[in-house]
Amino acid sequence: MYTRNLTMLTDFYEITMANGYLNQGMKDTIVYFDMFFRKIPDQGGFAIMAGLQPLIDYLSNLHFSEDDIEYLRNKDMFCEEFLDYLRNFNFECDLWSIPEGTPIFPNEPILTVKGPIIQAQLIETMILLTINHQSLIATKTNRIVRAAKGRPVIEFGSRRAQGADAAAVGARAAYIGGAVGTACTISEQLYGIPAGGTMAHSWVQIFDTEYDAFKAYAETYPSKCTLLVDTYNVLKSGIPNAIKVFDEVLKPLGHRPQGIRIDSGDIAYLSKKARTMLDEAGYDDCKIVVSNSLDEDIIRDLILQDAKVDTFGVGERLITAKSEPVFGGVYKLVAVEKDNKVIPKIKVSANVGKITIPGAKKIYRLYNRKNDKAIADLITLNNESIDDTKPYILFNPVHTWKRKKVENFYAKELLVQIFDKGSLVYESPKIDDIKDYCQNEVNKLWDEILRFENPHKYFVDLSYDLWIMKQSLLNKHSDIQLQDNKTD
Amino acid sequence: MYTRNLTMLTDFYEITMANGYLNQGMKDTIVYFDMFFRKIPDQGGFAIMAGLQPLIDYLSNLHFSEDDIEYLRNKDMFCEEFLDYLRNFNFECDLWSIPEGTPIFPNEPILTVKGPIIQAQLIETMILLTINHQSLIATKTNRIVRAAKGRPVIEFGSRRAQGADAAAVGARAAYIGGAVGTACTISEQLYGIPAGGTMAHSWVQIFDTEYDAFKAYAETYPSKCTLLVDTYNVLKSGIPNAIKVFDEVLKPLGHRPQGIRIDSGDIAYLSKKARTMLDEAGYDDCKIVVSNSLDEDIIRDLILQDAKVDTFGVGERLITAKSEPVFGGVYKLVAVEKDNKVIPKIKVSANVGKITIPGAKKIYRLYNRKNDKAIADLITLNNESIDDTKPYILFNPVHTWKRKKVENFYAKELLVQIFDKGSLVYESPKIDDIKDYCQNEVNKLWDEILRFENPHKYFVDLSYDLWIMKQSLLNKHSDIQLQDNKTD
Repeated sequence: MYTRNLTMLTDFYEITMANGYLNQGMKDTIVYFDMFFRKIPDQGGFAIMAGLQPLIDYLSNLHFSEDDIEYLRNKDMFCEEFLDYLRNFNFECDLWSIPEGTPIFPNEPILTVKGPIIQAQLIETMILLTINHQSLIATKTNRIVRAAKGRPVIEFGSRRAQGADAAAVGARAAYIGGAVGTACTISEQLYGIPAGGTMAHSWVQIFDTEYDAFKAYAETYPSKCTLLVDTYNVLKSGIPNAIKVFDEVLKPLGHRPQGIRIDSGDIAYLSKKARTMLDEAGYDDCKIVVSNSLDEDIIRDLILQDAKVDTFGVGERLITAKSEPVFGGVYKLVAVEKDNKVIPKIKVSANVGKITIPGAKKIYRLYNRKNDKAIADLITLNNESIDDTKPYILFNPVHTWKRKKVENFYAKELLVQIFDKGSLVYESPKIDDIKDYCQNEVNKLWDEILRFENPHKYFVDLSYDLWIMKQSLLNKHSDIQLQDNKTD
Repeated sequence: MYTRNLTMLTDFYEITMANGYLNQGMKDTIVYFDMFFRKIPDQGGFAIMAGLQPLIDYLSNLHFSEDDIEYLRNKDMFCEEFLDYLRNFNFECDLWSIPEGTPIFPNEPILTVKGPIIQAQLIETMILLTINHQSLIATKTNRIVRAAKGRPVIEFGSRRAQGADAAAVGARAAYIGGAVGTACTISEQLYGIPAGGTMAHSWVQIFDTEYDAFKAYAETYPSKCTLLVDTYNVLKSGIPNAIKVFDEVLKPLGHRPQGIRIDSGDIAYLSKKARTMLDEAGYDDCKIVVSNSLDEDIIRDLILQDAKVDTFGVGERLITAKSEPVFGGVYKLVAVEKDNKVIPKIKVSANVGKITIPGAKKIYRLYNRKNDKAIADLITLNNESIDDTKPYILFNPVHTWKRKKVENFYAKELLVQIFDKGSLVYESPKIDDIKDYCQNEVNKLWDEILRFENPHKYFVDLSYDLWIMKQSLLNKHSDIQLQDNKTD
C-alpha cells in the first residue's frame, strides 16, 4: 500500500564513492560511522529520538531494481562490476541505535553503523533524513505537549506539511513526542495513530443557516458531535446554535455533546465566555477544542490567562517545527578496521564543537537509584563496562578539573543492536509502548533540564580511557594548523 | 517504482463531511472551492506556483482500495452506502490552476475546483499539502538563485529534508525555482532533475593521506573530478594536494579538473586564496564550489565581499525553507450551485485580510506591450472578459479612489483548465520548459517587485462587477457583529 523503492533516495555522492571504493579494491573495508547531532532545537534541554522503525523498514527493503541499475548505467560513470554488485546487493551491516522515544543529547552517538564501507556509506542519506526529520518533530511536539500541561494535543498539520511523508510519518513522530492523535487519516491506517476530525467551515457555509449545518451534523454523528462554532460569530451565533442543537437533537437521542471547536479570534476570551455559556446550559462536560496557529508559546500564554481549553489542535507550527525546522544530525566516520585492528578516526576542526569523538563506542545513561532521575550520559570505549555497584567519577571533558562523584546509581546502555550483519535482531515495540516509554524517560529528567528558558546542560561525558584516546589523536593532528583565516 | 495509494492522506474531517453530505442527500451539490494564500514568505514580493504535476498524478490515481474501505468500516462511523460510493469512486471534478513556474500573489485564486461537494471537499488536504509545500520550496529557491546573480545553485538538502517526499519532490520544486540540479539521485530518476555529487569527508579520511584520497578519486573519475579540499586544511593541504593530483593524474590523461569544493571555514577568504593558487598553477578553469549552511543572505554577503565562488551548493535552508517553513495556502468555498444558478459564498471576518473573494472567477495578468512587464493581476467574474484593445481602469479595492488607467497592454488568463469532469485535459509541460517559463515570467516583474527588502506590492485588483458583488454580500452580513472581543 505504501511501499516504495527509495533506494535511490540518496545523495549522488554516496554512489560515486561506493563505485570508487570498489574500484580501489576497498569495498569490504570495515568502518564505523556514528550519527550524532550538535545542537538541540529551540534552545531546549534535550531532544527525542524518533524515526528508527521507518528506518528499519527502509533498510529491510533496500535493493536496487533493474530500473535503478539502468538509470545508473546511463550516467556513464560506473563500472559494470559495480552495477553487478548493486544488482546482488545484500545488506550486511551491523547497526545500533538509541530506541525511539529516548531523550537524546548533543554529541553522543545516537546511531552507529559498522560494516563494509561500500554499504555503510550508501545508507548515510536515508539514515540522516529519517532520524533528523522524525526526531525534529518528536522533539517539537514534546515541547508543545509539556506546555499544554496535561491537556491533550492533537496533530492537525497535514495541509502545511512538507510533502506526503512529512504528514504521514510526522503524525507518528508527534505521537511518540506526546500528541494524543492526529487529523491525518493515513497515519492511523499505517502506524496506528488515532485519527479523528469533524467539520470545516465549508460544512457550515454550504447550509442555509449555521443551525441547519449543526443539526445535520448532530443527526449524522450523534455520539461524536463536535461543532465548529466560529464561522460567523462564536458567542452570538456559534455557541447559541450549538446549545440549541445539543438540546433539540442530541438530548432526545440520549447523547451528550463531545465538544465545540474555536479556530479563530481571541481564544482566551472566547473560551472563557463559551465555557460559561455551555455550563449554564447544562453542558459542563462539553469539551472546548481550540486551533489556529498554536505553538508552545501561545499555549503557555493561553494557560497563564486561564483560557478554558480542554484540547489543543496544533498544525503548521508542529508539523514543520516552524521555530527551527532543521535537526542537524550528521554521520561521521569514527573508525576503520585494518589488519583486524580497529583504528579510531577523528575529524579535527578549529571549531572545537565540530571535532568528532573517535572510535567504536558505547553509551551508558546513569540514573539515581533513589529517585530514578537521569544523572549523566557516559560515552565509553566499546570494550569498557561500567560497574554501577561502585562510585564513579565523572569529569568535564574540557575543564577536566570539574568532577562529580556519582554513587548509588544504575547504568543503562543506550545503544541497542538493531541489525547484526544485515539481519534484523530487534523486536520493535508497539507505538503506544514507545509513546509511554518516551513519557517515562522524559519524567526521569530533572525539571532544570525540562524547562524552556535556559535549561541546565545535561552532562554528556567521556570515560577516562576514551578521553585519553581522543587527546592522543588530537595531539597527532596538532601539526596541522586547524583553520585558515584572514589573520593567518 | 514510486506509486503509492495516498488517497487516505487526508484530514479525517474530509471523510466525516463527505459521509455527512451523502447522508443529507447533498453529495451531488455542485460547489466551487478556491485555493489562495494570504502572505508571501520572507516578506518577498511574489511567490512561485509549483506542485501541479505531482497533484495531477495524485488526482489521476485517486481511488479507495479494499484496505481503505475496510479501515473506514472499522471506524464505525460511516454508512455502507458511503463506503459503496468510495469503492466506486470516480473523480469527476473540474479543476483549473495557474501553471507551475508562474509568479503568484496573495489573495488571488491559484487553483479552483468545481464539482460535487463530496469530491471537491475530499481532495482539499492533498491539494493544499502539495501546492503549499512545493510553492514554498520554489519560492525560497528563487530567492537564493536571484541572490547568486547568475552563478549556478545546486540543491544539496536531502539529509535535512522533512521526509522522503520533501527531498525527492523538493528537488523538483527547487529546479523550477531556478536551481540547476540536485544531489538527490531519485529526483533525476523520477523527475529528470540533473543529479550529481562527488565525495564526502569520509572518502578523504579513509585513505592514509589526503593526497592518496584525491589521487584515487581522480583515477576513478578523471573527466568529472571535483575534490573536497577542507578535510584537514584548505590552503595548506587541500588545494596543494588537489593541484598535485591535477598535475600528476589528470594532465597525463589529457583531462582538465572540474572543480574543488569548500564546505567549511570563511568562504570569502578561502575562496579568494584558493582562486589565486589555482590560477597560478594554471587551473583558472577549475570551478570553486562552496557549501555549508548557505542561504540568500549569506550568498549576497559572499558576493558583496567578492568571494570567488562559481557554484553554490545549498542544503537545509533551501529544502526546509528554514527562514519561513510554511506556505499558508487555504481552500475556501466560494460558490454553490442551486437550481442551476451559481450562488456566490463569502467567508466574513472582522480580520479583513481573512474575508474571501466570492464567486466563480477568472484572473487576467496584464502586461505592458512595450516592455512586456507585468502591470497587475485582475480578478473578474467568470463571465467577464477583458478587451485589451481598449484602456482599462484599475482601482484599489479598499481605497477605491486610487485608480490607474492601463493602456497599450495585453491580458493573459492565468487559470488553465486541468481536469474537465475528472478527465485530464492539460498537456503537462516538460520540466525544463517549466523552469524556463518561470525564469521568463520572473523577468517580466519590475525590479521593485523582485527586490528582497520592502518590495513594492504588486497590484491584485478586482473588476468592477466582482467588487460590486462582493460588497453586496458583505452588506448582507453587516448585521452580524463580526468579532467577539473583550471590548464588545
